[in-house]
Amino acid sequence: MADTNRGVVYMGPGTVEVQTTDYPSFVLRDGPGVHPDSVGRECNHGVILRIVSTNICGSDQHMVRGRTTAPEGLILGHEITGEVIERGRDVEYIDEGDLVSVPFNIACGRCRNCKERKTGICLNTNPARPGAAYGYVDMGGWPGGQARYVMVPYADFNCLKFRDKEQALAKILDLTMLSDIFPTGYHGCVTAGVTTGSTVYIAGGGPVGLAAAHGAQLLGAAVVIVGDLIPERLAQAKSFGCETIDVSRGDPGEQIEQLLGVPEVDCGVDAVGFEARGHGEHASEELPATVLNSLMGLTRAGGALGIPGLYVTGDPGAHTDAAKEGSLSIRIGLGWAKSHVFTTGQCPVMRYNRELMEAILGDRCQIARAVNATVITLDDAPQGYRDFDRGAAKKFVLDPNGLIPA
Amino acid sequence: MADTNRGVVYMGPGTVEVQTTDYPSFVLRDGPGVHPDSVGRECNHGVILRIVSTNICGSDQHMVRGRTTAPEGLILGHEITGEVIERGRDVEYIDEGDLVSVPFNIACGRCRNCKERKTGICLNTNPARPGAAYGYVDMGGWPGGQARYVMVPYADFNCLKFRDKEQALAKILDLTMLSDIFPTGYHGCVTAGVTTGSTVYIAGGGPVGLAAAHGAQLLGAAVVIVGDLIPERLAQAKSFGCETIDVSRGDPGEQIEQLLGVPEVDCGVDAVGFEARGHGEHASEELPATVLNSLMGLTRAGGALGIPGLYVTGDPGAHTDAAKEGSLSIRIGLGWAKSHVFTTGQCPVMRYNRELMEAILGDRCQIARAVNATVITLDDAPQGYRDFDRGAAKKFVLDPNGLIPA
Amino acid sequence: MADTNRGVVYMGPGTVEVQTTDYPSFVLRDGPGVHPDSVGRECNHGVILRIVSTNICGSDQHMVRGRTTAPEGLILGHEITGEVIERGRDVEYIDEGDLVSVPFNIACGRCRNCKERKTGICLNTNPARPGAAYGYVDMGGWPGGQARYVMVPYADFNCLKFRDKEQALAKILDLTMLSDIFPTGYHGCVTAGVTTGSTVYIAGGGPVGLAAAHGAQLLGAAVVIVGDLIPERLAQAKSFGCETIDVSRGDPGEQIEQLLGVPEVDCGVDAVGFEARGHGEHASEELPATVLNSLMGLTRAGGALGIPGLYVTGDPGAHTDAAKEGSLSIRIGLGWAKSHVFTTGQCPVMRYNRELMEAILGDRCQIARAVNATVITLDDAPQGYRDFDRGAAKKFVLDPNGLIPA
Amino acid sequence: MADTNRGVVYMGPGTVEVQTTDYPSFVLRDGPGVHPDSVGRECNHGVILRIVSTNICGSDQHMVRGRTTAPEGLILGHEITGEVIERGRDVEYIDEGDLVSVPFNIACGRCRNCKERKTGICLNTNPARPGAAYGYVDMGGWPGGQARYVMVPYADFNCLKFRDKEQALAKILDLTMLSDIFPTGYHGCVTAGVTTGSTVYIAGGGPVGLAAAHGAQLLGAAVVIVGDLIPERLAQAKSFGCETIDVSRGDPGEQIEQLLGVPEVDCGVDAVGFEARGHGEHASEELPATVLNSLMGLTRAGGALGIPGLYVTGDPGAHTDAAKEGSLSIRIGLGWAKSHVFTTGQCPVMRYNRELMEAILGDRCQIARAVNATVITLDDAPQGYRDFDRGAAKKFVLDPNGLIPA
Repeated sequence: MADTNRGVVYMGPGTVEVQTTDYPSFVLRDGPGVHPDSVGRECNHGVILRIVSTNICGSDQHMVRGRTTAPEGLILGHEITGEVIERGRDVEYIDEGDLVSVPFNIACGRCRNCKERKTGICLNTNPARPGAAYGYVDMGGWPGGQARYVMVPYADFNCLKFRDKEQALAKILDLTMLSDIFPTGYHGCVTAGVTTGSTVYIAGGGPVGLAAAHGAQLLGAAVVIVGDLIPERLAQAKSFGCETIDVSRGDPGEQIEQLLGVPEVDCGVDAVGFEARGHGEHASEELPATVLNSLMGLTRAGGALGIPGLYVTGDPGAHTDAAKEGSLSIRIGLGWAKSHVFTTGQCPVMRYNRELMEAILGDRCQIARAVNATVITLDDAPQGYRDFDRGAAKKFVLDPNGLIPA
Repeated sequence: MADTNRGVVYMGPGTVEVQTTDYPSFVLRDGPGVHPDSVGRECNHGVILRIVSTNICGSDQHMVRGRTTAPEGLILGHEITGEVIERGRDVEYIDEGDLVSVPFNIACGRCRNCKERKTGICLNTNPARPGAAYGYVDMGGWPGGQARYVMVPYADFNCLKFRDKEQALAKILDLTMLSDIFPTGYHGCVTAGVTTGSTVYIAGGGPVGLAAAHGAQLLGAAVVIVGDLIPERLAQAKSFGCETIDVSRGDPGEQIEQLLGVPEVDCGVDAVGFEARGHGEHASEELPATVLNSLMGLTRAGGALGIPGLYVTGDPGAHTDAAKEGSLSIRIGLGWAKSHVFTTGQCPVMRYNRELMEAILGDRCQIARAVNATVITLDDAPQGYRDFDRGAAKKFVLDPNGLIPA
Repeated sequence: MADTNRGVVYMGPGTVEVQTTDYPSFVLRDGPGVHPDSVGRECNHGVILRIVSTNICGSDQHMVRGRTTAPEGLILGHEITGEVIERGRDVEYIDEGDLVSVPFNIACGRCRNCKERKTGICLNTNPARPGAAYGYVDMGGWPGGQARYVMVPYADFNCLKFRDKEQALAKILDLTMLSDIFPTGYHGCVTAGVTTGSTVYIAGGGPVGLAAAHGAQLLGAAVVIVGDLIPERLAQAKSFGCETIDVSRGDPGEQIEQLLGVPEVDCGVDAVGFEARGHGEHASEELPATVLNSLMGLTRAGGALGIPGLYVTGDPGAHTDAAKEGSLSIRIGLGWAKSHVFTTGQCPVMRYNRELMEAILGDRCQIARAVNATVITLDDAPQGYRDFDRGAAKKFVLDPNGLIPA
Repeated sequence: MADTNRGVVYMGPGTVEVQTTDYPSFVLRDGPGVHPDSVGRECNHGVILRIVSTNICGSDQHMVRGRTTAPEGLILGHEITGEVIERGRDVEYIDEGDLVSVPFNIACGRCRNCKERKTGICLNTNPARPGAAYGYVDMGGWPGGQARYVMVPYADFNCLKFRDKEQALAKILDLTMLSDIFPTGYHGCVTAGVTTGSTVYIAGGGPVGLAAAHGAQLLGAAVVIVGDLIPERLAQAKSFGCETIDVSRGDPGEQIEQLLGVPEVDCGVDAVGFEARGHGEHASEELPATVLNSLMGLTRAGGALGIPGLYVTGDPGAHTDAAKEGSLSIRIGLGWAKSHVFTTGQCPVMRYNRELMEAILGDRCQIARAVNATVITLDDAPQGYRDFDRGAAKKFVLDPNGLIPA
């Protein structure tokens, strides 16, 4: 059973490599980012997956660009879909052969937070702080899934099983988005209050922004506007019915007014996070709070802001001491005057993935098309990271075992 | 200004006539169904509308079939869209010339219930009990709007203004559904818990059922199933992407299982009400609780039932004494075992109409097509009532002033 | 370790006996009510408890009175608090020596319903239908906890641990109510919409009714009114600040009007269920829908009804064929006219028990006093059942191991 | 009828005076802060009140300390309870002689926001931006109510009538808190997620902080902790059952850990706002974001922050250019890592005042005692402002017409 494993490894700022790695077992072994208290942790509740698809995420880029404290040697990858090839002795409801989607949040299903559906901040899977993930900085050191094989702990709780494997493989490029990006974008919209008839501004046309835009459509939004400064991304947004704003051309408010007749939307979604750049003449400058501050201006009084974009507690690449510790200059006075509500944090994927799976299987949405899912091999992952970093309007899906149907 | 008015008048069981009627004024005059305490009530907060479109509703049929205590002489019609031609002295935010949609609920905007968004049970507009409507039994005796002109009280609160009149006229067959049927169907879905990925069973393929089905699609439902026994209605449901079940062919559970693999849905909507008929061999028999009881069987444990279909407190045409008083034999034990939640009552239109308007204007839904909106003249209203009563899969829209664009 | 076990056994209508029973193991053995598919089911996720306190519940009475299809030989008891004396190999977060409260719902923590916090209708713990419980008819045949020892499956998920054992033992008579009655009463209030300033009518002054009344106080209700016909229960309700209504004295509406100035309350709670009796002159007659129908009259338009009182799918003791199948004559027309919302089903205890525990430990409520917790020995359980059946205003707490401090 | 009016007038930074002022009429006349578009606005929907009680608010202090752009000559006062002595011609449901509480938000009841219960950001009562209030900077220039008489527009919508005048006068010191402070504190708790069993940290022991603390108790919080550095305020908090933390003694986290065993609470409430000072050695320094930043540290992952404390868009007294425009250095990275939700803005009083009134009348809370309501004459208002500014643990209630019972 124990085949050779290979995975995408973070080698330090700017570099990833595909290397031979350990074949997974039902133990969390010592490794980069693993907390001493976790070393040797038994996971008889886990399963081992042969990975069918695993995607490169924008938050992987934050690590690879050296903007986090990610340790070298970390196997990356937290967007995982795969086939169960082995199960721990305590697993009851997931069987060998099942094809499953894995939320990027690693959750125990037994702590207070998991019971309250806050699986993004599980109390038991990361001794350092609430919340764990595969292949991610500060999230417990669990080996990532940009690999051929991975171990998924608490499999009965974490795995979302596709009931018809053949049907699922036929839609794998859509279903692969259930592990992170689709729920994350959708969560951004839900927490921004998007509902039937809403007008929505999505700041950022990367994959999360595009997923949010499609999520807003699914939620019944009347008008979905995506703002970015990369023409390719704006074209992608237009391709599935979004309005677009080129933020390099100046104040988004004026452009919104041209679209809607008023310079404000009902709901604002920050799909950029802390590596934001300015508008108009400041478009080449990194201004970490600019998206948040802009959204307060662009969102109507009484509206809400969903913030799936990442803000970090430590940013070695920041330009100021405050920003290095995650403190940004925020126009809280404006937000307060407009009675805004702000929702932050990682998406608790399990709150949404089953529903979104059903929407995909019922042909209610085409998320793969919206984010421009593009299949590459595992070996091409480093090139995918580079292309993505340059702003390619593509969501790269790795096919580490050659299982994705043509 | 005071043109002649004409309207559709209820003449007793089975008969409606188009007659000359009073031109509206800013006073509630004595008339059929007007409570003595309301006679002479001043409505300086009202506007007078030249009606652009006004629809025949299934609940009008309950009255016309003699299944309620509606008084003879009542001007019918509670689905009203029109142009403001005169405004009371206290109106501030609605102007002459505005084109507005009017919720069928007449609400004061000032009582506890209106403040809590429960405009369907306003405490101030009907002395007899909470809740008022135009042209409707037991709802305060306000003259109905299947007419050339109508007075709308509390206009600042009740009128939903279309911001672009020309654009609105171009979509008038969709927008005319905002006064009742689209919010009502949508409310049935919302209270049944329909959301992204839900499986939904709508009992009844009349206009409310079809509007509920389209509402479910707008809410992101994965699969929407409409059950009825009239082939024309089932064909109409299929025409916009619903699955259908012919309840005359037996147990809906089996048919649902063929569609979904399980015999239950997540959400059940009763779009029939008390004039229900049986399934299969009982299809010709009136069984007033059959839809509710069937829905409890068809809805999964933990699901909810939205009940926009009407249940009455007095039904002179019922077959049992209990049913004459609105008591029906309900399988509450089954519902309880499945932890069902039941939401009843008239839709508080104002909770939804602005959002649905935006969805229509943003081309997110095609409600006119879903319910098969069919324009007829005011004079053809009696024929419309007859056709509708025979189960025509049409939603009749009256054009009393010849203002609907061809 | 394997001590002798003793428990309260249902011997047939009217009779319970304390008998020697099997000492629990981590297997669900064959026995009364155990589904064939469950026989031999391994529960390495379970713990064995030495029971500290276990209460007699009103729903036990339904069984003992022969009003259900409960099998003879069933060990009763689903209100369990105890000390862990042995844990299965897969348990991670509950330790030997922990003192824990056990929700009466047996839930896996891994199915769709458990993930959605609907632990009362777990899909994995009862092959016959959604929902399982200890010692209860139609709930999977799991041995009950009116015993010295019991096995609790899925212990990491199901057990609520008290962080300070000594403090917990000092409040054990309050904390023992967390397994069922306090969450159940509180759930009735939450689903009836009770919040700050509400007026609430609780139909039924048995333990669930009293727990609901105290729950309503905790939720900030302005006025809590308890209706019953047993003077002792009404006195008990008065003792902690409730208003009371003696339903044997006629229409509760008039009595409510005397208290509130209006004949209706904001929120209605049915804490009686299907073994209801009439008002006034009908007080001695069983009228299974009378509480529900009465509550629709007594609850204001726009209000809601919480229905923790049990309604069953099969009642061998019912007076009509319809009622034998759980169909009752319900004034749905009235409820519909008032836009009522009805929430049924067993309380998902885990949604509330942690919060209520904190409220108890923070001295925010005195549930033991409210329900008149009364400690008896295991051997006195049969007498407790008889006293309770006669309407004693007491909540009997069994002390099977002599561990409750004096 | 037109008696002489007298009111508290803002004379510039540091000074208020009691002066003779215009007797109110049903027109918004020109005056300090009145938008040109509003001059001459007719208010036939208004009533004139003889004021029974009117309180000094912490937000009045922001103006009087010169930390806002409030215009000189403004009549202050937005916490108003009074008797109707005259009504405009369009008022229907409020009568002369009625005793009413007035939300500080002036709301039309007819715009989108009012219909959505967001009365704090009404779109029609302030041409400059959403949201209006009496006697307040940037809120439309409506004359304030620290006076003998005041005009209340949209009286049917805005006035909360006490149904029993005598009973209400007997509880006037409690009921006077309904116009602002009690709903505002309660809203802070609701938006912080306070519910049964919560642990809550309230930053700030001024009147809003104390009202929030009492609101938390009413919501069932297990432990309510108030932090401040003024001993008198901490003593006041202790007097009604709160735990307290002296922030001048260092890190609140350690003190919270001593109380709870963990250094975090479930819910954080910022009852301080932008004029915050530091902890420990920084206690004498103004650090405008310190409360928000501290609350992110003290609130558990998955918790929420309610922010009733005021943050402004323009602060002439700020120490930095950014702060002068309402931009503060906020540890958004930390909040994001903990998935915090932040709710800002003025409390929409009408969402809560009826419920809180019922709770007061039902003796479920003693808000006057909690905030230490202290009656003074209108002429003593300037002294009241000075005492309050020095940190007196009192809520000053003005009695401008000598109507408050001894």
